[in-house]
Amino acid sequence: MLRFGLPKGSLQDATIQKMAKAGFNIQVSSRSYVPYVDDDELEIRLIRAQEISRYVEHGYLDCGITGYDWIMENGSDVHEVGEFLFSKVSRKPARWVLCVPENSPVKSVKDLQGKRIATEVVNLTKRYLKQHGVSAEVEFSWGATEVKAHELVDAIVEVTETGSSLRANKLRIVDELLSSTPRLIANRNAWKHQWKRQKIQTMAMLLKGAIEAEAKVGLKMNIAQKNLAKLLKALPALRNPTISGLSQKGWIAVETIVDEHVVREFIPKLKAVGAEGIIEYPLNKVVY
Amino acid sequence: MLRFGLPKGSLQDATIQKMAKAGFNIQVSSRSYVPYVDDDELEIRLIRAQEISRYVEHGYLDCGITGYDWIMENGSDVHEVGEFLFSKVSRKPARWVLCVPENSPVKSVKDLQGKRIATEVVNLTKRYLKQHGVSAEVEFSWGATEVKAHELVDAIVEVTETGSSLRANKLRIVDELLSSTPRLIANRNAWKHQWKRQKIQTMAMLLKGAIEAEAKVGLKMNIAQKNLAKLLKALPALRNPTISGLSQKGWIAVETIVDEHVVREFIPKLKAVGAEGIIEYPLNKVVY
Amino acid sequence: MLRFGLPKGSLQDATIQKMAKAGFNIQVSSRSYVPYVDDDELEIRLIRAQEISRYVEHGYLDCGITGYDWIMENGSDVHEVGEFLFSKVSRKPARWVLCVPENSPVKSVKDLQGKRIATEVVNLTKRYLKQHGVSAEVEFSWGATEVKAHELVDAIVEVTETGSSLRANKLRIVDELLSSTPRLIANRNAWKHQWKRQKIQTMAMLLKGAIEAEAKVGLKMNIAQKNLAKLLKALPALRNPTISGLSQKGWIAVETIVDEHVVREFIPKLKAVGAEGIIEYPLNKVVY
Amino acid sequence: MLRFGLPKGSLQDATIQKMAKAGFNIQVSSRSYVPYVDDDELEIRLIRAQEISRYVEHGYLDCGITGYDWIMENGSDVHEVGEFLFSKVSRKPARWVLCVPENSPVKSVKDLQGKRIATEVVNLTKRYLKQHGVSAEVEFSWGATEVKAHELVDAIVEVTETGSSLRANKLRIVDELLSSTPRLIANRNAWKHQWKRQKIQTMAMLLKGAIEAEAKVGLKMNIAQKNLAKLLKALPALRNPTISGLSQKGWIAVETIVDEHVVREFIPKLKAVGAEGIIEYPLNKVVY
Amino acid sequence: MLRFGLPKGSLQDATIQKMAKAGFNIQVSSRSYVPYVDDDELEIRLIRAQEISRYVEHGYLDCGITGYDWIMENGSDVHEVGEFLFSKVSRKPARWVLCVPENSPVKSVKDLQGKRIATEVVNLTKRYLKQHGVSAEVEFSWGATEVKAHELVDAIVEVTETGSSLRANKLRIVDELLSSTPRLIANRNAWKHQWKRQKIQTMAMLLKGAIEAEAKVGLKMNIAQKNLAKLLKALPALRNPTISGLSQKGWIAVETIVDEHVVREFIPKLKAVGAEGIIEYPLNKVVY
Amino acid sequence: MLRFGLPKGSLQDATIQKMAKAGFNIQVSSRSYVPYVDDDELEIRLIRAQEISRYVEHGYLDCGITGYDWIMENGSDVHEVGEFLFSKVSRKPARWVLCVPENSPVKSVKDLQGKRIATEVVNLTKRYLKQHGVSAEVEFSWGATEVKAHELVDAIVEVTETGSSLRANKLRIVDELLSSTPRLIANRNAWKHQWKRQKIQTMAMLLKGAIEAEAKVGLKMNIAQKNLAKLLKALPALRNPTISGLSQKGWIAVETIVDEHVVREFIPKLKAVGAEGIIEYPLNKVVY
Repeated sequence: MLRFGLPKGSLQDATIQKMAKAGFNIQVSSRSYVPYVDDDELEIRLIRAQEISRYVEHGYLDCGITGYDWIMENGSDVHEVGEFLFSKVSRKPARWVLCVPENSPVKSVKDLQGKRIATEVVNLTKRYLKQHGVSAEVEFSWGATEVKAHELVDAIVEVTETGSSLRANKLRIVDELLSSTPRLIANRNAWKHQWKRQKIQTMAMLLKGAIEAEAKVGLKMNIAQKNLAKLLKALPALRNPTISGLSQKGWIAVETIVDEHVVREFIPKLKAVGAEGIIEYPLNKVVY
Repeated sequence: MLRFGLPKGSLQDATIQKMAKAGFNIQVSSRSYVPYVDDDELEIRLIRAQEISRYVEHGYLDCGITGYDWIMENGSDVHEVGEFLFSKVSRKPARWVLCVPENSPVKSVKDLQGKRIATEVVNLTKRYLKQHGVSAEVEFSWGATEVKAHELVDAIVEVTETGSSLRANKLRIVDELLSSTPRLIANRNAWKHQWKRQKIQTMAMLLKGAIEAEAKVGLKMNIAQKNLAKLLKALPALRNPTISGLSQKGWIAVETIVDEHVVREFIPKLKAVGAEGIIEYPLNKVVY
Repeated sequence: MLRFGLPKGSLQDATIQKMAKAGFNIQVSSRSYVPYVDDDELEIRLIRAQEISRYVEHGYLDCGITGYDWIMENGSDVHEVGEFLFSKVSRKPARWVLCVPENSPVKSVKDLQGKRIATEVVNLTKRYLKQHGVSAEVEFSWGATEVKAHELVDAIVEVTETGSSLRANKLRIVDELLSSTPRLIANRNAWKHQWKRQKIQTMAMLLKGAIEAEAKVGLKMNIAQKNLAKLLKALPALRNPTISGLSQKGWIAVETIVDEHVVREFIPKLKAVGAEGIIEYPLNKVVY
Repeated sequence: MLRFGLPKGSLQDATIQKMAKAGFNIQVSSRSYVPYVDDDELEIRLIRAQEISRYVEHGYLDCGITGYDWIMENGSDVHEVGEFLFSKVSRKPARWVLCVPENSPVKSVKDLQGKRIATEVVNLTKRYLKQHGVSAEVEFSWGATEVKAHELVDAIVEVTETGSSLRANKLRIVDELLSSTPRLIANRNAWKHQWKRQKIQTMAMLLKGAIEAEAKVGLKMNIAQKNLAKLLKALPALRNPTISGLSQKGWIAVETIVDEHVVREFIPKLKAVGAEGIIEYPLNKVVY
Repeated sequence: MLRFGLPKGSLQDATIQKMAKAGFNIQVSSRSYVPYVDDDELEIRLIRAQEISRYVEHGYLDCGITGYDWIMENGSDVHEVGEFLFSKVSRKPARWVLCVPENSPVKSVKDLQGKRIATEVVNLTKRYLKQHGVSAEVEFSWGATEVKAHELVDAIVEVTETGSSLRANKLRIVDELLSSTPRLIANRNAWKHQWKRQKIQTMAMLLKGAIEAEAKVGLKMNIAQKNLAKLLKALPALRNPTISGLSQKGWIAVETIVDEHVVREFIPKLKAVGAEGIIEYPLNKVVY
Repeated sequence: MLRFGLPKGSLQDATIQKMAKAGFNIQVSSRSYVPYVDDDELEIRLIRAQEISRYVEHGYLDCGITGYDWIMENGSDVHEVGEFLFSKVSRKPARWVLCVPENSPVKSVKDLQGKRIATEVVNLTKRYLKQHGVSAEVEFSWGATEVKAHELVDAIVEVTETGSSLRANKLRIVDELLSSTPRLIANRNAWKHQWKRQKIQTMAMLLKGAIEAEAKVGLKMNIAQKNLAKLLKALPALRNPTISGLSQKGWIAVETIVDEHVVREFIPKLKAVGAEGIIEYPLNKVVY
């Protein structure tokens, strides 16, 4: 049996959905803390993202999904199996940034000497200040940290993705401490255990395949045989496409996988080199 | 930068979803009236559908999506770039119709001489009455217009798609004033500006591709080589399909794109001419 | 016209969604008991699953979807057209089981002589007891049957899929009375009527195609021509795949349909025999 | 300990609220079927209203709240402790009525000879038909009975309070079978047990006090001493009011308890006889 | 029968609740446009607040509740029976104000010559501009007017209560056009009809009594007889209180009705002059 | 101005409701972190209960409401103004308890030597262990602490009110560390400032009055004059009641304030000594 920790809370539904796409159907019951999963070799535990690395390190979990930020904050000694990119809208990692009010005199971390900073990542912040030779008071924030920057403390260290919440709170980014993405981590002993390691690696491959598929699409189009070379030259990203015949002579169908976010730029170019009947279709998994 | 107006309110979520399918991810925040969009060349504004054509005409917006009905009601002088069909269930345009209670003596617009009519489209209604040489009082209705026909006014001009709400309110359609579909419209100056025009055209193509894909599906089937001609003859709609080999000798795979709503009639016919392993798959975009 | 009964209540949304996938769009209105469907040859009625077989038998409905359990409970004389498997998570049929508290002395149905049993399926339970020569009081339970087993009665006959609700209520399964899946049933006269029979058969085929598609996916991969035989040998389930060319010489694309729940086992094996660029895509319908 | 059954389901929240007003605070947890109550002498069970009388009769419950209709339907031999009137809007009991479509030829129960009737109260209906010497088929309806009257059966027996749902479904009432109010019932042995009987009686008094208080209000007014007799004569319902002095000479304050629904008629009359500063205030309990 | 119009939409629930407090219980059904009311002399219609005065003027309604603003906007010739103050939080009337962005150069209405103004109250705004001799374009806004002030128009006329939404949108108030409170209005003919007039007057009295009771509370306290004069002198607002005896000699109970929002200032003063056991209790109605 | 901190999060709505009962109406907007309050002398801040004492100590807040537990956990040096009891159901303070699984061998804190404990109150737990001379690892728990006791740690320190959640999680209480109630605390300097101190004291009095009123009710009854002494003797809790006359000779009305939770015991006793027409009414505030 492999004991697998998934993040409880705001990421829970998204993670369970990704597990389902990877092929592992999980059902959470309000009556039991052990979720059902349709794989007899797996045992799921839902634990706060902040704590997963701690319990993987201690061996209570064989592996788990958590953020790079919390692995660092906890200073956990674990094996990192793989990295995922969850957020679809921004396609950007989460960033822990040092912020002050827009009109604050603070211009760099050096200006925080003797000041007070609120954050959920006390250890990361202390380490960062030490690196810059700054001595300041760091206090744990239980939440709503952004609001505190205006009245209660001199600066905050907070997480952001697009920066829009910071802007709405009229905060200015002074520096970035850490950029973080979700990771699949394993306990060091579990990783040495052959069966567990193989199981973890398979799950990593399937999860990666499911997650990457969210940012990819299939693209298929018809083109006159004679224009194929031009097409491939114009769009080298269409590497190694499938080529099939059409019932109409002299025409072929070309099919490949591309990043969804480039399609809006590709389609005008495809049309320009003579592609017709372009279709885009969704994918469940992409495994290279 | 292109300033793009999208309809706020009941169509908002559907429109944002369609924009996402077209490749433009929008995030609406309760803290700001400017939504985030992952395209640095775009600025999104959410405005009531009734008003978009007015602000496109004045140039506050370069382009926008709104209904043909509101362009006509406002009498806006704008360039119409394209037409979309949003509603999936009925695949029918919205119709503004003149209605009276089922048991009303009113049989045609002529019978409304000297009567009172409630509607949200006062200008359209006045123009319509004038065309028919009828003089009647037209009053603006702030909503719940259907209920008014029974007590407060003699007739209403109301919008309907399937007519089921009219039937539930025991109303009878006397005449149709206007049939309306969503349109992408552009400010006349923006349309003359080369970069803006090209950007608008690309977005029109992608949006059209995304919207049409909702009503289309991919269809793939295996058939004995010898039956191909019969298949194509029986179903001329399967124009120019992709033909691929199968590992089984003498059999081929045939693949094409068709309207989803005909599939329920196609499949029995495909089976009848020997098709096997028929699969239907969803599409994200279809660009001819 | 064909009058078609669909289960009202907890399965209603799932059934309407499946009908939509099959190509029949239904709209339920709070203002009318007759739902709209975009097929002029169909009339939809929403009726409790427990009662559908009764009204199909009497001819008030030409056909309907209900569970095998309720056909048996009602002892309805109807024609069974087809069987579907709705539940995705467990891929298991619903089972009606005889249960007692974990610590009950009851070990088999024989121990229930003279006892009291609560259930929603009184007829099924009485027939089962008679078969085993046991005489016990069977009372109709209006719901929350599981809770009653601990205090109010000696045993219950309840439905379960994964058994997790029984476990949460600390109940032990003593015996299984019936395993049930959804069925499409027809009135015996309607089945003799040629047009109705054909319409029912087409709908059965389309519904089956839509439902099976939920448990199937398309799988496509690239492989060196020389490895194809190894691939097909390793995975005989990939029967009769489509073979297409790739722009890269010596490589081919292989495509087929497989059960979604085996993909998590297939992908490592596919990789092992040299497959690359494996993609999985969703299906709307699968009709063999 | 007294085991007390409360109706689970649609009346559950209203009943728990009434219990709280009576002084007994109940907390229902999703983790346990035994609700918490802040009285060590009570054990609460939530059971469907349809079944409570059965379990009170058998002694699994000492007492419970359920409708007179279900006591009759089950034919339960229990002691009836008291009657309550729950519904506030209509202040009318629930009525089980025989209904047919508005345009049905059925005029009286006699016309149902040989017909089919759907109902949730099969026993009540059979007994009623027998009393009238009518032989008809009575089938159990699992719900949505009103809709069935138009197509599936010839008549229904359904519950109604204001009749508005029947009107909306275009049904006509042919006869009334039973008028029902909530009752507090006790097991016959529990009622003979002194402590249990006293506990049940106290609870009945407190519940009745809380429920009646919902339909009563306190009314207080100032009036010139000389007008008091006129006031009491004009409104004999103001029996035995409290009389207090006012700081202003010759004036007194009069205070009493009245039915809330008569206040709208009282106040104009009170004004007419010279009352001033009339206030109405809410009550938690009224115990005569 | 009296036909009474209540505002549909955002104020609907609040109004129905106030009607209930006044003694008239209304039930709105999704199946009918005629709500149920437990008074056979009343017929309720729910109509948008913007339109009620129009239909009262025309006699389709005998009376109705709407805002003073919409009576003015519509220029309706109706009889005003009474004024109510609905909003509890601010205890302030709704104000229609002319607003511009905080950093706009517009300082007074005079600066709007030749500009464009968006508003829901087009007539009120045009009249206001005319009074100030300003010529500007006024366009009807379908909603979200506040957002338009920054980009789409030069100024807006919008409604506000506490001004907090204007502040959040960074708008500055230039002038106030109208202050509005809810009114009970009657058709001029209905008002001449004796029975209708009396019915309307009674309802006005009961509604006013219910609405005022929301802002009033009962206050009762014990005080030494000798301190009564001091108490009444310190708090003249406690006019004509009820005086009762206490079981303790030399002490009395004093009771009166006061505005709830002054209680927080009264209680310290009451304590200062020797009051004890001060209690505040809620009221349902207050009729002077 | 007085800056007042209220607990953000799960207690927020309850606290704002209590403030309203005390006479201070607060409106929280999603657009601003500064809530509106209808008192120009107050500035409200919503801050997590865990942090309020810290910011009161530092003087960022003049005063605030938080739990005794978090004052202790933070070791904040603040002035305690008053104590409230918020929870209505249990009328019990929150208790932080040391728990282990029901079947754990741990019997007392001594058995935790060298073990691992998870808790949200790390400082309280470390202090407690030190007092008992036990050395154990204490780790911060981000939530769902109860679940951890079974697998991840050896014991937990968790908060409970009725103990029902602990029972549902099959945990056993080993010891109690702290009993906690909500407190109004003030910054030590603010408390020395005359105006602030007086304002804080007034608010404390009003809040206490509002909170205590939730657990109190008014009780009024009629009794024959001759039975009054018996009544007061039987129920000494009815201290110093108001005595008024009734219109019926020889009878009086007696009125007083009592704890709501004793009413269910009082009423039978009141009846026993001859009281009639007993009514209970709700209170908004009670200030002794």
